[in-house]
Amino acid sequence: MSDPSLAHRPTLEAVAARAGVSRATASRVVNGSDGVRAPLAERVRRAVDELGYVPNQAARTLVTRRNDAIAVVVAEPETRFFSDPFFAQQVRGISKELTAHDNQLVLLLTEGAADYERVGRYLAGGHVDGALLFSLHDDDTLPGLARRAGVPTVIGGRPGWSDADTLYVDCDNRGGAREAVRHLLDGGRRRIAHIAGPLDQTASVDRLEGFRDALPGTDPGMIIEGDFTPEGGARAMADLLDRCPDLDAVFAASDVMASGALRVLRTRGVRVPEDVAMVGFDDIVSVAEWTDPPLTTIRQDIEEMGRMMARLLLRRVSPGPGQQESPALSSIVTPTQLVVRASA
Amino acid sequence: MSDPSLAHRPTLEAVAARAGVSRATASRVVNGSDGVRAPLAERVRRAVDELGYVPNQAARTLVTRRNDAIAVVVAEPETRFFSDPFFAQQVRGISKELTAHDNQLVLLLTEGAADYERVGRYLAGGHVDGALLFSLHDDDTLPGLARRAGVPTVIGGRPGWSDADTLYVDCDNRGGAREAVRHLLDGGRRRIAHIAGPLDQTASVDRLEGFRDALPGTDPGMIIEGDFTPEGGARAMADLLDRCPDLDAVFAASDVMASGALRVLRTRGVRVPEDVAMVGFDDIVSVAEWTDPPLTTIRQDIEEMGRMMARLLLRRVSPGPGQQESPALSSIVTPTQLVVRASA
Repeated sequence: MSDPSLAHRPTLEAVAARAGVSRATASRVVNGSDGVRAPLAERVRRAVDELGYVPNQAARTLVTRRNDAIAVVVAEPETRFFSDPFFAQQVRGISKELTAHDNQLVLLLTEGAADYERVGRYLAGGHVDGALLFSLHDDDTLPGLARRAGVPTVIGGRPGWSDADTLYVDCDNRGGAREAVRHLLDGGRRRIAHIAGPLDQTASVDRLEGFRDALPGTDPGMIIEGDFTPEGGARAMADLLDRCPDLDAVFAASDVMASGALRVLRTRGVRVPEDVAMVGFDDIVSVAEWTDPPLTTIRQDIEEMGRMMARLLLRRVSPGPGQQESPALSSIVTPTQLVVRASA
Repeated sequence: MSDPSLAHRPTLEAVAARAGVSRATASRVVNGSDGVRAPLAERVRRAVDELGYVPNQAARTLVTRRNDAIAVVVAEPETRFFSDPFFAQQVRGISKELTAHDNQLVLLLTEGAADYERVGRYLAGGHVDGALLFSLHDDDTLPGLARRAGVPTVIGGRPGWSDADTLYVDCDNRGGAREAVRHLLDGGRRRIAHIAGPLDQTASVDRLEGFRDALPGTDPGMIIEGDFTPEGGARAMADLLDRCPDLDAVFAASDVMASGALRVLRTRGVRVPEDVAMVGFDDIVSVAEWTDPPLTTIRQDIEEMGRMMARLLLRRVSPGPGQQESPALSSIVTPTQLVVRASA
């Protein structure tokens, strides 16, 4: 322990002496190891308490206020987290950026929203310097829990509220959706349907707005809500075909939903793009290049957005050298790009 | 703070008074928030130090010695972690078990072994009560780092060393491999090759031993080392076909490698199972049921093994009620099971 401000703190040796045990035994108790008999462990804990002993790392953290660790919390159950390649790509960018700054990526997994209180307790426990939150839904309690925990955050995707303190990274969902529909219109399509994402998420709402910008007055029966899964895309496509058998194009709010929709079209003998053209959103290469036919889509640079989120949060957590406070930081909205493949 | 042993600890109010700032300002500094001017923050830190103030959570942890959080560290780069469905399945079991015990799953991701020192620092930082380590390689420094950090561990897969303190959960890799080869022999196959996993991992070594048990004296040219990826399986299969054009069966040490090998056989016009039979290992349903033809394999219950690892670690971390020390715990080796599909 070279930090001079810690020099007068009680040492582990002092704890051991007061408890009448060896340093090794005191160390095991303080470090939470097994195998020390309860009465001895109790004596050590009493000595810790009486002397006000703080283990090195906790003491160091108390002074530096840094753990060099950033939490990532995805507001989805782990099953969805592992099955949707979007998340792996975003985490990839975050991981690269945090590693470049020697910060540890701490991924907090949950089975569902019922576990958020526990995540909040972990965030409040002083184990991380900040948190990246993604895939928020309207009623998510995570941002409030993070705020009460006093942990600086950056949000992945525009949050459903806005205030000066909130920082986020998103792509231009509305502009991208407009471009998708214009590409279909330019190709001569006139009966264009939309498979939206879950409408309790801003990305879905913004993509729907972009669709409506390009096609004002669309029959509401041509718009159907999916859930960002292949199965949800397949269900939505089946419903659309039943409702509007004359549709000639679909804009799906994610590549993953588009892949499910393409499967239904193939099963029903509908030719893509001859009978129905399809445009997705995201450009997840492992999906869009492998659908049959390959998928025309709106590209967002998911990995780079992960890097941006991490960079923004690190700047929020650590003001630069010579700066007393964080610099003025702002949210980032990145452009999207049309990628034309065979489906439209 | 209801714990009476904490009653005499200095309060945040006392820190604020000593520093001559408001309680709110003191709280912001102690909680690591932004926006407190440096000289004020410095005064608060000095007061913290002089009074020996410990924030509630740290104080609570110091007394209870529990964070209700378990780390999971996979000794693979995050790219491999996200691309191999084996890990998602094992994490699924761990997540369910930890959630059932209201413990937080803390997944520590890395870009590679160069980041293990940082993982070791996080483990030593008192942020988790224990760690589950998997996919260890012979030269991995992770177990040593965890030991020095004083964090109780359970290992996924038999480790390359053995001592009384080490607990692990594994399947009967050797017995499973023997069963795979016997199934091929029973089907009349006589020129059986083996695509092994990376031989710096015990699972690969044990499966190779099982292969040799059933086929003593096999030509070493019929055994080739892969790397548990589809690409590695494909490369190994291509090499085997060049070396031993008369082979009539392959036992691949993982379903993922078998899927790559099947692709090469198809490309070369080799019929499965007519010309060459294939048996995998793992029974990862999302792989084995979808290969062409579907894959005969050796099943290990990966999700249940994740649950077992979590359960064993929680028992190691928290002795049961009325117990002064951890009960005697032992490593677990689960049986495997042949699952016959079309490939053999």
